Amino acid sequence: MGTDCVFCRKLAALQTVPPDEMVWEFSHSVAFLGTWQYYHGYCLLIARQHATELSGLSTMERRRFLDEMCILAQAIESCFHPRKLNYELLGNQVPHLHWHLFPRYEDDAEKGKPVWVAIDRTEQDANEQLRLQSGPFARSATIEKLRGKLRELAGEV
Amino acid sequence: MGTDCVFCRKLAALQTVPPDEMVWEFSHSVAFLGTWQYYHGYCLLIARQHATELSGLSTMERRRFLDEMCILAQAIESCFHPRKLNYELLGNQVPHLHWHLFPRYEDDAEKGKPVWVAIDRTEQDANEQLRLQSGPFARSATIEKLRGKLRELAGEV
Repeated sequence: MGTDCVFCRKLAALQTVPPDEMVWEFSHSVAFLGTWQYYHGYCLLIARQHATELSGLSTMERRRFLDEMCILAQAIESCFHPRKLNYELLGNQVPHLHWHLFPRYEDDAEKGKPVWVAIDRTEQDANEQLRLQSGPFARSATIEKLRGKLRELAGEV
Repeated sequence: MGTDCVFCRKLAALQTVPPDEMVWEFSHSVAFLGTWQYYHGYCLLIARQHATELSGLSTMERRRFLDEMCILAQAIESCFHPRKLNYELLGNQVPHLHWHLFPRYEDDAEKGKPVWVAIDRTEQDANEQLRLQSGPFARSATIEKLRGKLRELAGEV
């Protein structure tokens, strides 16, 4: 664990994560509801192990992390029925493995483009920031729905 | 296979793919050198099976596709030593599973941002298009280097 890494610190203090952000604890990663809820159900999936690249994980650890990514994706698809799901592992700003899972919807005027073209505008435009942060439901309701599905997929119900 | 799908048609006619685009045939996917070689080594990895989402593959098929993504990623990292590798599975325009693997470099003034902020500008700006299409080496040299590493990883040398 890197003490300089914001994601390592976040994972080490999960009890302090606000309830409208925490989604699910997997064995090898933790899912959080992301900021940009215009993309309703958008989640971040952060690897528990600190590594900058997928190649920094053992083959087994990597496969488990990717399996968990797919379980989270399945929950998002089942709950919100997006037109398309976008998977992105970037780490250009925070170099600790994390997936962005962005569901894309039919009524998005920019549905043919990557989300970042719109998100980049928020740096200069507070209205655009508010628009992209606002989802159709309360964050807590989105999380409750995802958890219900994840419990089902985990065989807990 | 969907006959309306441009990627299905591409995979069905691999012998017609230009030599400065074809990188590697895996069992479950095929790697191509992408357009934007400012991100030197940028590849597309297209699944052989037609599916819109990862959830449309069987668990075994999906794991193999993701393993091949990681082998290609390892080859790109070994050949070109990027600062960071960006993985993106979008499909907003071509809904047939494909990964974009974008290596990011230290001398990129926008290295903290997703590539799409720059690529989006190319729609209005021919100079920017030329800049992002141009890599430091000829495409054929980039492909030869990647193939050498992929042969090694496949145990062929």
